[in-house]
Amino acid sequence: MLDTSKIRVIPDFPKKGIQFLDITTIMNNADYFQEVFNMLLEMAKEVKPDVVVGLEARGYFFAPALALALHVPFVPIRKAGKLPYSTYKATYQLEYGEASIEIHTDAMKENQRVLIFDDILATGGTAAAAIELVKHFKPSFIATHFLMEIGFLKGRDKIIADDIRSLHLV
Amino acid sequence: MLDTSKIRVIPDFPKKGIQFLDITTIMNNADYFQEVFNMLLEMAKEVKPDVVVGLEARGYFFAPALALALHVPFVPIRKAGKLPYSTYKATYQLEYGEASIEIHTDAMKENQRVLIFDDILATGGTAAAAIELVKHFKPSFIATHFLMEIGFLKGRDKIIADDIRSLHLV
Repeated sequence: MLDTSKIRVIPDFPKKGIQFLDITTIMNNADYFQEVFNMLLEMAKEVKPDVVVGLEARGYFFAPALALALHVPFVPIRKAGKLPYSTYKATYQLEYGEASIEIHTDAMKENQRVLIFDDILATGGTAAAAIELVKHFKPSFIATHFLMEIGFLKGRDKIIADDIRSLHLV
Repeated sequence: MLDTSKIRVIPDFPKKGIQFLDITTIMNNADYFQEVFNMLLEMAKEVKPDVVVGLEARGYFFAPALALALHVPFVPIRKAGKLPYSTYKATYQLEYGEASIEIHTDAMKENQRVLIFDDILATGGTAAAAIELVKHFKPSFIATHFLMEIGFLKGRDKIIADDIRSLHLV
């Protein structure tokens, strides 16, 4: 469980009616940053991943460090147009319009255990698109881990994975 | 020194005439990712930073892990409009047009030793803007560290810092 007093809540960001969870206050506290990282690492170890995938941009705050600690490769999923080599692309719906994310076509081998990490599970659109990308590599196991999960948005209902976990449900 | 055979060069990305240095191939090799991280960590330790600042997005591949290993806070500089709390903003020139980056106004204390990390020093525009942001906090020491530095673009000439280093000059 996270100590929610250490997460700053910003009302009406990025627009009216949204309570934004600002995790920069976790990372700004060296002791607590380490503590949260250790909790994520314990959760990740149980997956025994062959590779850690991180989602741009806030997923990168933790995912590369998890890969280093687990001594496995790190693979970035990026917003469309950013990865320079050949890519697979997945498109998902936003409240208004849509967005696309990409992964390099040689990002991983087939038949691997894959851990996908992002900071927050909200509506689940990005996570579902990330799973679609990873499935090109016929993984043997897909885990999606998050720092936090916003329960009422029911993101879990959009995700089909072998393991869906977060440190904290709000 | 980096082993340049482990960095993929993509011709004409993002546009004709640019040789893009693709560092995802470093991170995709667990042993080499660890080796490069250790080199960056040794370089960072010499700075004795009180805080590590990372630049969106590729700076985040290493900067948060450096902060964790050094047991200091991590502060993200983000593209304009992404940070939810009050921010300082700096604008820099691109080849066509301009771009802005931001830092939270409570990101750090005054009189600290600050290590700014990004993956590649090219024209130096982003790094100079990052230094402008950090100077709001009256740091006692500013270091800018990079994985790689593209010499002929003369980015160093745009940067005024106490320490400017990269693992590799191309």
